[in-house]
Amino acid sequence: MTPSLDIPSRFLLGPGPSNVDPRVLAALTQPVVGHLDPAFLRVMDESAAMLRRVYRTKNDLTLALPGTGTSGMEAGIANLIEKGDRVIVCVAGYFGERVCEMVQRHGGELVRVEAEWGKPIRAEQVQEALREHAPVRLVAIVHAETSTGVQQPLAEIAALVQESGALLMVDAVTSLGGVDLPTDALQTDYVYSCSQKCLGCPPGLSPITVSDQARERIALRKRPPASWYLDLELLQAYWDERRAYHHTAPVTLHYALHEGLRLALDEGLEARFERHAAAGAALQIGLQQMGLKLLADLPHRLPVLTTVRVPDGVSDAAVRAQLLTERGIEIGGGLGPLRGQIWRIGTMGVNASPQAVLLALSAIGDVLAAHGHRTDVAAGLAAAREELAVRPAARRKSATPS
Amino acid sequence: MTPSLDIPSRFLLGPGPSNVDPRVLAALTQPVVGHLDPAFLRVMDESAAMLRRVYRTKNDLTLALPGTGTSGMEAGIANLIEKGDRVIVCVAGYFGERVCEMVQRHGGELVRVEAEWGKPIRAEQVQEALREHAPVRLVAIVHAETSTGVQQPLAEIAALVQESGALLMVDAVTSLGGVDLPTDALQTDYVYSCSQKCLGCPPGLSPITVSDQARERIALRKRPPASWYLDLELLQAYWDERRAYHHTAPVTLHYALHEGLRLALDEGLEARFERHAAAGAALQIGLQQMGLKLLADLPHRLPVLTTVRVPDGVSDAAVRAQLLTERGIEIGGGLGPLRGQIWRIGTMGVNASPQAVLLALSAIGDVLAAHGHRTDVAAGLAAAREELAVRPAARRKSATPS
Repeated sequence: MTPSLDIPSRFLLGPGPSNVDPRVLAALTQPVVGHLDPAFLRVMDESAAMLRRVYRTKNDLTLALPGTGTSGMEAGIANLIEKGDRVIVCVAGYFGERVCEMVQRHGGELVRVEAEWGKPIRAEQVQEALREHAPVRLVAIVHAETSTGVQQPLAEIAALVQESGALLMVDAVTSLGGVDLPTDALQTDYVYSCSQKCLGCPPGLSPITVSDQARERIALRKRPPASWYLDLELLQAYWDERRAYHHTAPVTLHYALHEGLRLALDEGLEARFERHAAAGAALQIGLQQMGLKLLADLPHRLPVLTTVRVPDGVSDAAVRAQLLTERGIEIGGGLGPLRGQIWRIGTMGVNASPQAVLLALSAIGDVLAAHGHRTDVAAGLAAAREELAVRPAARRKSATPS
Repeated sequence: MTPSLDIPSRFLLGPGPSNVDPRVLAALTQPVVGHLDPAFLRVMDESAAMLRRVYRTKNDLTLALPGTGTSGMEAGIANLIEKGDRVIVCVAGYFGERVCEMVQRHGGELVRVEAEWGKPIRAEQVQEALREHAPVRLVAIVHAETSTGVQQPLAEIAALVQESGALLMVDAVTSLGGVDLPTDALQTDYVYSCSQKCLGCPPGLSPITVSDQARERIALRKRPPASWYLDLELLQAYWDERRAYHHTAPVTLHYALHEGLRLALDEGLEARFERHAAAGAALQIGLQQMGLKLLADLPHRLPVLTTVRVPDGVSDAAVRAQLLTERGIEIGGGLGPLRGQIWRIGTMGVNASPQAVLLALSAIGDVLAAHGHRTDVAAGLAAAREELAVRPAARRKSATPS
């Protein structure tokens, strides 16, 4: 007989999932009801309305897909392009590469616009690609590259794309709820995210929003998308007043998302963004004062996910394993070419807090010392405290593993 | 400010989700950990091992997809066929139709083998189609058609498919954990199910199992499947010892599935199947003794989901609404051509119990009477009690909405 689960508490300071607020965890145990129960339809309507506020959009087609953030990425590609369409994908990390892979699988003609991992894409690169490869159906870009810790400036690129007549797809998996993303002001056409990072819910849902312009293009498709499961027109027919059966919604995850969105809006988006900004800044200053080097440069450094170089001679895997087993702290390793080269430290959701920042600095310093690499932990903590002192918003939440 | 959720308790006697055992609901609130945490990898390994027992298979590639049962259907089509492959789909209800739609989207050459909704497919039909359309890449069939309440006999058809060299895909969404499905004995190649029906977990995961023969065919594909999210080779690389990052697993749903599988195996599969058989038989005899007519005929009547004709002159929607609002009981309406014609009553998971059966009979009788249609409730209850009395396995669990 398999024993029942006894899962340890962790400080989830990796690239996600982040720790879940106890109120969100409690929402998971509301009674399961049917996916067409009036009580659940109300959950859907309220969550869609709250998602519109978090995405800062009026888009009718705003909902949570029954899959992880990657399903949101695939839904965008599957619905927005058809075989032979030219697609510009901005690649400056692992998730840009993943989009390329999907474009090719869905028959798009791929145009890569690249930047070194750790740098953002420049607007002129997109401008040139749009000119050279016109007509372009879609431009895909990652707002917060989870593999590099770079925050991509979007305003100028979004304006160029809009002017070209192409659609704009934005990956907000690591930014939504922690970094401002004004969907409508930027005139983006398709934005997708996940539930388990800055929104602080369990993984398994992918909140998306789709512009009216994108919906009109989808309606003109010659063939339906290959994916029935992620067909946006079928999903829309379930989420709008038609309530046409499509899939059995993961109701418990929707309860959690509803609660997570409520808490985010109750805190206030501006306050929440400032809390994430303050925690990220304090962590980054602290790491640097300890003598460690960050991968991403200002001003493109993402506040919610910090990438720091593994010091020479130190074993990436051994340090992470010790942090996990000895201190219960998860941080992330590098992906792709950065494997073994960097750590990824998330300060997202409830973990965008002074406690999480100071815990991370001190534990990383301790464990590095145990591996023979001395850092100036006291200087790091002092610098972080100073940064936090001038940014009171950071103090609003406490980091508690749940 | 959106108020916090206050979801009512329901008796979920529709086509799913079914009620969730309180122990499964409690498992949802185990702490969220990372998708590569050793504690979570153990959950995956144990769940895969338990799924193999429930599926009665030795298939290495046995796992739970990060999506609903429909994602399991789509993963099968996306991975098992390539553009131009000939695919026989057995259609005797809504879910057979859904498979056809997916085959066409994924470029397959569709051959339909049809039976009237409410009847099973006959083996000779498959035999003839295999002969006429050879070579056939895949035959798809639904084991338990949720739209009609028919249980499809599989042994003869499976043998024919195996002999022909085609692969066999089986939809076990409504049967897994409630009706025996000996995957290996039948030599099926791909079987998919869901978490929220006879396994009694919340919706959001799709347990699948894939034969070695099917994996060999997948490895020989000329092009990867259109879906990256549901690519079985990538999923395998996450579930096996490579642990290659693919998606952020919906960890809380996996905790629940782990507990649901534990409870199913603790009860014992044979006992569990007999409990479902007894509850279904009692419900069906009871409904008939009340004077109602069933859609599916013996011996093809599914025990776990009973389809009963809406009596002439009675409003389907009004009866279901009154059952829900007045008695907290969900039963399902008909799909497609059976919309308004039948009700679908599920006795799955914890609801495969005397309490659920007697509750359903008495509540349906009461509400029908309120709508001017008299039934002989006392006779129905007496017949159901008598059936339950001779089948003691039915008494093992109690139906409690949670």
